[in-house]
Amino acid sequence: MKELSRAVQEGAIAYLKQQYKVVTIFFVVLFAILGVISWGVPFAFITGGFFSALAGFIGMTVATRANARTAWGARESLNAGLRVAFSSGTVMGMTVVGLGLLDISIWWWLLYGVFDVAPEEIPPIMITFGMGASAMALFARLGGGIFTKAADVGADLVGKVEAGIPEDDPRNPASIADNVGDNVGDVAGMGADLYESYVGSIIATMALGAVASLGLDSITALQAIQVPVSIATIGVLCSILGTFVVRAKGDASQAVLLGALRRGTYGSTALIAIGSFLLVILTLGSEFLGIWAAMIVGLIAGNIIGYFTEYYTSDHYKPTQLLSNEALTGPATTIIAGMSLGMLSTLIPVLTVIGATLAAFFLSGLYGIGLSAVGMLSTLGITLATDAYGPVADNAGGIAEMAKMEPHVRERTDALDSLGNTTAATGKGFAIGSAALTALALLAEYGNKIKEAFEQLVMNINLLDPKILIGLFLGAMLPFVFSSLSMRAVGRAAGDMVNEVRRQFREKPGILEGTERPDYAGCVAISTQGAQREMVVPSLLAVIAPILTGIIFGPFTVIALLAGALTSGFVLAIMMANAGGAWDNAKKFIEGGAHGGKGSDAHKAAVVGDTVGDPFKDTSGPSINILLKLMSMVSIVFVTTVIALNDLFIRIFS
Amino acid sequence: MKELSRAVQEGAIAYLKQQYKVVTIFFVVLFAILGVISWGVPFAFITGGFFSALAGFIGMTVATRANARTAWGARESLNAGLRVAFSSGTVMGMTVVGLGLLDISIWWWLLYGVFDVAPEEIPPIMITFGMGASAMALFARLGGGIFTKAADVGADLVGKVEAGIPEDDPRNPASIADNVGDNVGDVAGMGADLYESYVGSIIATMALGAVASLGLDSITALQAIQVPVSIATIGVLCSILGTFVVRAKGDASQAVLLGALRRGTYGSTALIAIGSFLLVILTLGSEFLGIWAAMIVGLIAGNIIGYFTEYYTSDHYKPTQLLSNEALTGPATTIIAGMSLGMLSTLIPVLTVIGATLAAFFLSGLYGIGLSAVGMLSTLGITLATDAYGPVADNAGGIAEMAKMEPHVRERTDALDSLGNTTAATGKGFAIGSAALTALALLAEYGNKIKEAFEQLVMNINLLDPKILIGLFLGAMLPFVFSSLSMRAVGRAAGDMVNEVRRQFREKPGILEGTERPDYAGCVAISTQGAQREMVVPSLLAVIAPILTGIIFGPFTVIALLAGALTSGFVLAIMMANAGGAWDNAKKFIEGGAHGGKGSDAHKAAVVGDTVGDPFKDTSGPSINILLKLMSMVSIVFVTTVIALNDLFIRIFS
Repeated sequence: MKELSRAVQEGAIAYLKQQYKVVTIFFVVLFAILGVISWGVPFAFITGGFFSALAGFIGMTVATRANARTAWGARESLNAGLRVAFSSGTVMGMTVVGLGLLDISIWWWLLYGVFDVAPEEIPPIMITFGMGASAMALFARLGGGIFTKAADVGADLVGKVEAGIPEDDPRNPASIADNVGDNVGDVAGMGADLYESYVGSIIATMALGAVASLGLDSITALQAIQVPVSIATIGVLCSILGTFVVRAKGDASQAVLLGALRRGTYGSTALIAIGSFLLVILTLGSEFLGIWAAMIVGLIAGNIIGYFTEYYTSDHYKPTQLLSNEALTGPATTIIAGMSLGMLSTLIPVLTVIGATLAAFFLSGLYGIGLSAVGMLSTLGITLATDAYGPVADNAGGIAEMAKMEPHVRERTDALDSLGNTTAATGKGFAIGSAALTALALLAEYGNKIKEAFEQLVMNINLLDPKILIGLFLGAMLPFVFSSLSMRAVGRAAGDMVNEVRRQFREKPGILEGTERPDYAGCVAISTQGAQREMVVPSLLAVIAPILTGIIFGPFTVIALLAGALTSGFVLAIMMANAGGAWDNAKKFIEGGAHGGKGSDAHKAAVVGDTVGDPFKDTSGPSINILLKLMSMVSIVFVTTVIALNDLFIRIFS
Repeated sequence: MKELSRAVQEGAIAYLKQQYKVVTIFFVVLFAILGVISWGVPFAFITGGFFSALAGFIGMTVATRANARTAWGARESLNAGLRVAFSSGTVMGMTVVGLGLLDISIWWWLLYGVFDVAPEEIPPIMITFGMGASAMALFARLGGGIFTKAADVGADLVGKVEAGIPEDDPRNPASIADNVGDNVGDVAGMGADLYESYVGSIIATMALGAVASLGLDSITALQAIQVPVSIATIGVLCSILGTFVVRAKGDASQAVLLGALRRGTYGSTALIAIGSFLLVILTLGSEFLGIWAAMIVGLIAGNIIGYFTEYYTSDHYKPTQLLSNEALTGPATTIIAGMSLGMLSTLIPVLTVIGATLAAFFLSGLYGIGLSAVGMLSTLGITLATDAYGPVADNAGGIAEMAKMEPHVRERTDALDSLGNTTAATGKGFAIGSAALTALALLAEYGNKIKEAFEQLVMNINLLDPKILIGLFLGAMLPFVFSSLSMRAVGRAAGDMVNEVRRQFREKPGILEGTERPDYAGCVAISTQGAQREMVVPSLLAVIAPILTGIIFGPFTVIALLAGALTSGFVLAIMMANAGGAWDNAKKFIEGGAHGGKGSDAHKAAVVGDTVGDPFKDTSGPSINILLKLMSMVSIVFVTTVIALNDLFIRIFS
């Protein structure tokens, strides 16, 4: 068991080393470009990237170490397994939020305390730091996502479907790569991603606070900027308190365990609501309760989206159960029904975000929209804990299988995993919802920047202006092209993996008989190469598209580009995440005994759905969330440069 | 052969009768509602629906009669088959454009000639007539699409994949339903759809002309309104001339036949360019050549989009060939790669529409954008002829198979069919591109209506206003939810069909041995019921969404809704159409002998892709094009009512 665990750890470290090499080149180039613009900015950019990567790395290190121990704990009882897995999730959750607040605090201390920068000038520098975090997160999500899905598809298609051996069977050459992938993709990728979401929402709100304060009578810019950070701090403290509640008796059932997790989350939520209420009342006064209410709007909206994410993707509810019925008529109807489910599931999240936007705007203007994102993510410390332990349980199951532990161990880790899927669905809802609200806040901040640049208070961004309409078209297209590139990347890397696994089975017939050792490292190397090769182009798209659009068509078209990308990207991201989640759980539902169970034709059809859903839900979907914010931040950071280049462009071509 | 042909005809007529019953209810209700608003309007609405249905019906009647004769002609030679099929396509093409111009002329004569209505007041009434055409087209596309795809999926999945009998084998109980579907979906649906596109583009441009004339110095409203109709008329004449060129020698190869078709299209295009140039010079004067140029922009843009549609979906090019490689690794990778291909293929059409919009706007303002749509569709008479003969050839093949004609007949009809796929791809490009430009023109017209209603010249539709942003979100979501409903409809109806075919094979084992007659009518009835049941909700969505949004949030949010739906819907429609087309041809490529040919595992995987692609390309994708225009027209027609109800709504809730 230790040997397997070490192989997975080594593979993961080897992959990350390679990834950081590629990323370093990207960061050095952007560092140099940013250096031309301002002195503090490039350093902020670098630290954002560094802390984002660190959040992923620490989470992954903890997770890989916890895998084997969780399997060991599950030998004893379900509860013991949960405690090990949940502890490691907690470490990760606290790491992400702790590092986020730490980095923001360091920069605040440096700029405000040491260099005496005026408060309202600090958030723009912070946005560069957010840009670094987003860029790193995009690499982590894309690279990790491509790696893990290539390995997963390869392992599943050839191992499970063609050769008919169980999942995580050590005879499968891609099994170690698959486990490595779960760590670098689902854990390190998610850590970097949520770090980015977390600091992104805080920073965007700080930036809007610096401007919003002009409108709010007796509140200073300093106060408005500090509110989001203070709410986030309260959130961390309440999350820590919440984790103490997550415990159950030794022989607890799955339902009891879910109750324990829920108790932790809801307890924290209630504490945060009370804490931030006191904060606003005591520091700003009761006339600013709108600020508190805007934050609560976000918290509620997050829960609604989370609930409906679960509704559409969990096999406890109708939609996924009906989807599993489609598997009876084969893979084609499974795919059609899953796509349809994903598309329909966009309705409620869009209505919820619309409602939250209107309510938050009504309560505290554009600043309120940012605050609602901060509120939505204020429970991240604990939701991430309940989220991150899923992959740990999943890997523990893999190790139990490969190490040929007793069947009840695998059953228990599967139960933990299924529990993890349910809570992870809620977590994904928060991530997607907060991405929309944060991107809206960043869009507003970009508008402020343009107003500054053109020294005008009302902007001419008439929706029927052709320059605006073409921006919307471009923006609506970008998430599709971006998803295409990331899916193509997965498909290509997975194709290589399928061929490699088939080759090993063919050339070494002893593998399937258990007499020959498969070449695990070969599969890890193929996934690594694929991920590195394929993640560059989509990442560059996020940086180049808004800049190029700005240079050719000017900053107003960029606003439309961002708005178009936000709206179509949000819908596309939900569709992909939910379709993928539903396929995954429809397969699990069948594996649980429905429609003939494992090995039936329905199961084979469901595996096809799950395989298609993998890049949807773990690569393209979550990457779109990051893409939207990264594009906005790039637009904000480069706004003056782009306006100058646009002037030059117009002068040359007219 | 005659018996089979009659069975197909009877099935089609029975289906259409049922469909028109359902549609009549819808039209009567809307007729009554419209009657409250104005006197002429409801009649215009009815005639639009009537002529749209008529275009589909005539086309279908011609097509069903031509099926058997094409098969008979193909016995003699490829060329003889082409001539029969192409003649029927020509009849359909000319019917669509002829009926379109006829209906516009009747209303013009009535309003301008008989009732003496001022020219600038006529186009708004005409838009109601366009709304009728769009509503009918949506029903035809949806109902027909659901019917045909349910039958197709049922026939393919059980017959080809499970029972292993060839396509169109008479032992397959769904084979007659499948053939009926090709007629009611691909022919009647396409006829109604293109009728709608054609009159939609002309009417939208007339409406903009009535306003644009205010800006153009020496041109009267009457002249500006007449330009699009005149261009369309020239287009019809030149298309007729073009059809005379489409002929080849008796022993002509496929390449020669394609050349003949191309000669007809390009010849017509050149004639139209010359004819409309003379028209503008002679009637308006050389200072208005911008009008001509805007129209040419559309013609060029249509060809670019058409070319790239072919590039991405034809198996003569890399993308589809690479897609067929993915079939070697199974259905899952086929689906992922096809989705990715579809998403990537949105890039060029979006850039083309952006370029066309900017160029047309630069040349003649918003009016120019409408003109570019008219220009794009001016060749419809002949492109539709080359388009509509595809289904005829397809059905001829079906009849040849079922009637057990000599193998070379089927080979020839397959060759004709493959030729039809290539030209149909170009036709689809024109339909999608013109839908975007027409919807843009309608959006502009809606803006004009609001300006009128609020008596202000500059509108407050700031893109960063939350009311506008939420409209964009709602709009971006609608095409997804709409597609979900239509795909779900196909999935559900197909599921019924799969079960029915399986039941027949199980209960009557003699069917597969050829000793028992399958129950064809049962399958036709299942498809009919499914289509009728499922087409209502998505159709209502198109009407209710913009009205409800307007009542709750006001007309400015509706503008944003339309813009959001247009941009995300355009991208989604292209993705679905091209992914579907590529899967279809990847399958044909394998059937042509690649990767093991028919019956291989790769072929089975490709069939899954094709089956998923069917509702994409023939139901959801084309329906989105109609949805976008219908929503705009509904918004325009009900604008004053909605503004009044919105006032009432605000007064009640504040």
